[in-house]
Amino acid sequence: MKHYNRAILPIGFTAQGVAAGLKRSGKVDLALFYSTYPAKAACKFTTNSMPAAPLVVDKQHLSASKTFQAIIANSGNANAFTGRQGQKDALEIASCVAKALSIAQESVLVASTGIIGKRLPVSKIKHAIQPLARQLSKQGVTQAAKAILTTDTFSKEITVQCAIGGRTITLCGIAKGAGMIAPNMATMLCFIFTDATITQEALRKALTLAVEDSFNCITVDGCMSTNDSLMLMANGAAGNALISKGSKLRMFSKALSSVCLSLAKMIIQDAEGATKFITIKVKQAKSFTEARQIGLAIANSALCKTAIFGENPNFGRIVAAVGASGVPVREQDISIRVSPLDKKEIFVEVGVKRGKAQATLYTSDLTYEYVKINAEYN
Amino acid sequence: MKHYNRAILPIGFTAQGVAAGLKRSGKVDLALFYSTYPAKAACKFTTNSMPAAPLVVDKQHLSASKTFQAIIANSGNANAFTGRQGQKDALEIASCVAKALSIAQESVLVASTGIIGKRLPVSKIKHAIQPLARQLSKQGVTQAAKAILTTDTFSKEITVQCAIGGRTITLCGIAKGAGMIAPNMATMLCFIFTDATITQEALRKALTLAVEDSFNCITVDGCMSTNDSLMLMANGAAGNALISKGSKLRMFSKALSSVCLSLAKMIIQDAEGATKFITIKVKQAKSFTEARQIGLAIANSALCKTAIFGENPNFGRIVAAVGASGVPVREQDISIRVSPLDKKEIFVEVGVKRGKAQATLYTSDLTYEYVKINAEYN
Repeated sequence: MKHYNRAILPIGFTAQGVAAGLKRSGKVDLALFYSTYPAKAACKFTTNSMPAAPLVVDKQHLSASKTFQAIIANSGNANAFTGRQGQKDALEIASCVAKALSIAQESVLVASTGIIGKRLPVSKIKHAIQPLARQLSKQGVTQAAKAILTTDTFSKEITVQCAIGGRTITLCGIAKGAGMIAPNMATMLCFIFTDATITQEALRKALTLAVEDSFNCITVDGCMSTNDSLMLMANGAAGNALISKGSKLRMFSKALSSVCLSLAKMIIQDAEGATKFITIKVKQAKSFTEARQIGLAIANSALCKTAIFGENPNFGRIVAAVGASGVPVREQDISIRVSPLDKKEIFVEVGVKRGKAQATLYTSDLTYEYVKINAEYN
Repeated sequence: MKHYNRAILPIGFTAQGVAAGLKRSGKVDLALFYSTYPAKAACKFTTNSMPAAPLVVDKQHLSASKTFQAIIANSGNANAFTGRQGQKDALEIASCVAKALSIAQESVLVASTGIIGKRLPVSKIKHAIQPLARQLSKQGVTQAAKAILTTDTFSKEITVQCAIGGRTITLCGIAKGAGMIAPNMATMLCFIFTDATITQEALRKALTLAVEDSFNCITVDGCMSTNDSLMLMANGAAGNALISKGSKLRMFSKALSSVCLSLAKMIIQDAEGATKFITIKVKQAKSFTEARQIGLAIANSALCKTAIFGENPNFGRIVAAVGASGVPVREQDISIRVSPLDKKEIFVEVGVKRGKAQATLYTSDLTYEYVKINAEYN
């Protein structure tokens, strides 16, 4: 399995990013991804009870169509809490993309990120779609990866290649996310493209597995977004022997998990205002879910996060967080190890003597800069 | 019902606070409260699965004895995560207080607050108990209220008087708490003294009721402590007709709720680093519990708290927090009103069109100063 820390689009995919005028900074803010061949798709969306308009439209398209060819994604505006008008706007954009690419409207997926509660500037986006479609290319993915960023300081790209079913399969993922990051959903915007030939069921299974210990194991601030979307497209252009189960699926799963984990870690590396990358390993739990619950209690504790920021070895706060997690860990059973706090990478290991399961969580510290970014962002 | 914003001990109670040398600052850090008459007690403790040693001892005493005469409370050290040694230490202190006051050891309750995971300096405390016992007085409550503080910037005192059963009843409460404040428990240290004559059952009922919409409706940082203790003592010295049910209990409940709510609000006014006092009213919920769940999701959202600190009317973050609360509120049903953000007191009102229940929560903003206090505290 080969890893590249940049986006290399698989066979049959092109992309591009432009500045449509949604960001006041004038930076690129609209991305288009296109597959020449109709692709299967598997998606994960936020579990927020008020999902943004594009997610509502995506769910309609996912039940109306079996193949997909394009994703249009904008930053600067989340098109969330915008009611029926927001859904109309998302549909109008999907329709405009479909026309520009001569594909069915239901084969277009839509994603937005940015401020909540403001109407999407539809005409600006529509104006940008034609030039965007004309400039689609392999190299355009670099601009596309930039166009989905908001408070991120770098674009998150990863490519994994491996041999499955007699061919080289490429998986290419890009993501955005730095704040409003919490699990129980896909946790951000993430688009993954592969040329693998794979059954719909296998694609869905592999994605569910991959998300569990990557995007569902990271937290910046415990805040669940309205827009989190993870979209995976597989267009079969590699021409490999069909992946449906057994060792081929295991290999594909492994590659996909690697893509998801790499992107999830990049999100934490870029966490708003963070000065530390914190890995929390919870061992000896009764189940993975229980281990994750304990890990999240630590990862979301403002007191643990500020203590690590202050390089203040206040382990009592870890004890208090574990005790408050809802898992009945007893005082005599807990063991805690913390690596030196004066480094950028911090490792916290917690044993709870309840069983054999474990989970690894990734989080950041809580800093002045986090407060500054979120007090001033609008 | 008369309110006084200072502690006036009821008949039969005395108190005192001294510097026993637990705080590096040399400030008062050991408080003793004493009732001449054996008093009934009702207590609420943290639901943290790893309660501090004094809580373990208190629970033993509460099941071993029916009446209580003293509370010994120290700041500067939580005696938490200290194992069997910690329990021995707490017992030794209770025993020392019992001897100094010539009362039974089981009639002494113990409370600690401060750093977690360090052994209590027992000999320092024991040395201070004799002089403390000798100096007990009505006026000593002012020093006692100071002696339980940690990061608090002011002492929290309240007295309520009302006529019940032919006599004037006094309820006097003091509390400490500024950080590591979250509900699902009593949330801090709080001691309430009354001279009311009341049945054990009525006392317990009134306390449970009072806590629900006071201490269980405040949050600073969502962090549940290992030491939260609320202790209520009633010594019957007022000589009123016994309170057991009906209008007398309703009146007592009302007075007790008023004491608890006043102290809970003071804790939020003194929240670590806070610049805003935020009242969140959630209306039209199916139940009080549901309304509180929604309110807490907003109150604990780092993004809502930083937005209010930044006086940044980013209402989308309230929407996202409500959607993430676990209560299935629909976009078309939510209504939000927020008072002007340039004031110190902020009112957030959220309607969810699901029913007729409501809850009011109190919280603070998340500021640079909160991060500073908790990064540097040790």
